[in-house]
Amino acid sequence: MFRSILQGIVEEAEGYSAVLMGYDGLAVEQYDRPAEVGDLTSFAVEYAHILKEMKDTLGVLNSGEIEELTVRTERFQIIIRTLNEEYFVILTMKANGNYGKGRYLLSRDLFRLREELQ
Amino acid sequence: MFRSILQGIVEEAEGYSAVLMGYDGLAVEQYDRPAEVGDLTSFAVEYAHILKEMKDTLGVLNSGEIEELTVRTERFQIIIRTLNEEYFVILTMKANGNYGKGRYLLSRDLFRLREELQ
Repeated sequence: MFRSILQGIVEEAEGYSAVLMGYDGLAVEQYDRPAEVGDLTSFAVEYAHILKEMKDTLGVLNSGEIEELTVRTERFQIIIRTLNEEYFVILTMKANGNYGKGRYLLSRDLFRLREELQ
Repeated sequence: MFRSILQGIVEEAEGYSAVLMGYDGLAVEQYDRPAEVGDLTSFAVEYAHILKEMKDTLGVLNSGEIEELTVRTERFQIIIRTLNEEYFVILTMKANGNYGKGRYLLSRDLFRLREELQ
């Protein structure tokens, strides 16, 4: 069920990959669209690490829980949406992809993903 | 001159604060709008640290240079725009602020800020 939600997000966003992952860096489910961008798993693990660190630090700084993190590089746009205390979703899109649509799709399916996690 | 550019961005975006900062965590210039959100300097230093780490890691992962990083928490939206190898700008806005406008303003003034840095 996770996989079909992730697949829907990737295909509608014309993205490369969506991963449901824990803060421990372990992927629960992943959907990759066939594309010549190589393996994005190492990215996802790295983002888990960064997100964990930010979560800890920003908690101390009293800025409230992180809801979303986005990174735009020369090659990719990455949108990370936190689901709960333990899990988040990483959507990787091409650099000139429709960022707004990616954000919308993650927000749209947030509730379904949270429900599935329970 | 930096200060007037930062002030323009903060006021037009109705943001809290804009900081021109180096990857070493030292602020070159800062403009804070009077607001009851407390001192945001500790955030900025923390983001410098995170950005530095991401820059190093993503460089290894061959994803291209980081151009923009955004973080949305329960209290804030933070948009970080890299200027060059050494400096970046952090714009902190309220959680329900106009994110798109903030991004636009940073892009608009990117060239002026880069020029000033030379």
